[in-house]
Amino acid sequence: MPPDVILPYKKDRETSYAPGAFAAIELLRARPRLARKVYIRPSFDEKDSLADECARLGVPVLVSEEAFRRVREKENEYVIAVFEKYEDRLDPNRPQVVLVSPMDMGNLGTIIRTIAGLNITDLAVVFSSADLFHPRTVRASMGSIFRINCALFDSFDAWRAAFPDHACCPFMLDGEALPRVLESENSPLFALIFGSEARGLPPAYAATGRAVRIPQSALVDSLNLSVAAGIGAYGFAEKYGLVG
Amino acid sequence: MPPDVILPYKKDRETSYAPGAFAAIELLRARPRLARKVYIRPSFDEKDSLADECARLGVPVLVSEEAFRRVREKENEYVIAVFEKYEDRLDPNRPQVVLVSPMDMGNLGTIIRTIAGLNITDLAVVFSSADLFHPRTVRASMGSIFRINCALFDSFDAWRAAFPDHACCPFMLDGEALPRVLESENSPLFALIFGSEARGLPPAYAATGRAVRIPQSALVDSLNLSVAAGIGAYGFAEKYGLVG
Repeated sequence: MPPDVILPYKKDRETSYAPGAFAAIELLRARPRLARKVYIRPSFDEKDSLADECARLGVPVLVSEEAFRRVREKENEYVIAVFEKYEDRLDPNRPQVVLVSPMDMGNLGTIIRTIAGLNITDLAVVFSSADLFHPRTVRASMGSIFRINCALFDSFDAWRAAFPDHACCPFMLDGEALPRVLESENSPLFALIFGSEARGLPPAYAATGRAVRIPQSALVDSLNLSVAAGIGAYGFAEKYGLVG
Repeated sequence: MPPDVILPYKKDRETSYAPGAFAAIELLRARPRLARKVYIRPSFDEKDSLADECARLGVPVLVSEEAFRRVREKENEYVIAVFEKYEDRLDPNRPQVVLVSPMDMGNLGTIIRTIAGLNITDLAVVFSSADLFHPRTVRASMGSIFRINCALFDSFDAWRAAFPDHACCPFMLDGEALPRVLESENSPLFALIFGSEARGLPPAYAATGRAVRIPQSALVDSLNLSVAAGIGAYGFAEKYGLVG
């Protein structure tokens, strides 16, 4: 029986939580069987309709102010849905985004939201990385983490062994300009690879495929990781008709 | 004479600060005359070369651990450069991004970094909004705030009165698809308009010009504001040859 108090998040616990009504509802709609319990503050406006939805899905609900007392202030919300952590398999026949050592939970969650919005439904995360199931990642994803497949890999080689057929496009500051790649590339089974916030991808990644550069001015060192991933993923999603 | 201790940031103070060596150096290079004083921790590796650069520019330096004691932990760094707040004029002959009520300092700074990287060098921010000069905005911009022109406007009408010739492209979920707009639009003097994180732009903005929609799947409600602005701004910057 799930406890009457939400426990603080820990990486080694088998559960995490979706903070906020929006993310909680995404969990209930996309993966209801992973929802262990939904906690609602008595002051939440739509508590009755949310409790009804939980009842219909067979998910336990607790309306209680006291339940929230151990949650860290930054993760505090009107609604918190506790869920079992899970492992997805990526679809070998779908394009992917591959993040190598993303370190910021906000970026990781924002990239999940972005690629879900672009209908790129498979994300590989190469270790080490920010915690995929941390409530802050879930929050930054606006719950879209439950809508796509996400899988962790110990190394890039482990990812490549699992997906040998994807056409790799590592994003690197010395690659070919994105518009030129989009004009001439023809590999709908693509993998867009992005490095960490601080260092990008090591030079060796150029050999994995066709390196791509987002054209940029000399006024900045680089673009923010989520913005770069958004621009790159949009270009490919638009070219291959994933969104229209 | 600037004080020996960095004062906590306040919106109504006439100074703010650039947190971190990277942002401080951008300040010194782009707007040295606005730098009041650079504070460096004794443990900073490159303190001698940074102090030399300050001396060359006539900017006072203080190497002191004690100077950092009143700075909030989240804004703590090895280097903090205090600067005078300023007002820019936007260039009437350059394209712009116009942000209507952006509420998140991270998004505001990230968008500044993005458009600087795309050579869109003029940003209008319509009130109310996140604080343009807050250290967290400056940090999210990676100091690129000092490289472009940013100006505040009390209302969209005040902005429009100042820039009547720009071709407005409000980004709205029911606009025309971005690729179609980019194919047929021919207005190098453009203004890309984005609404707030929570609500986007009110429907009336459709009448200001040609409304643009970033194609997206049904898996998300909307894209993150900085990502949407990045995708939109990249499309226009690439089309009009601002980056290449």
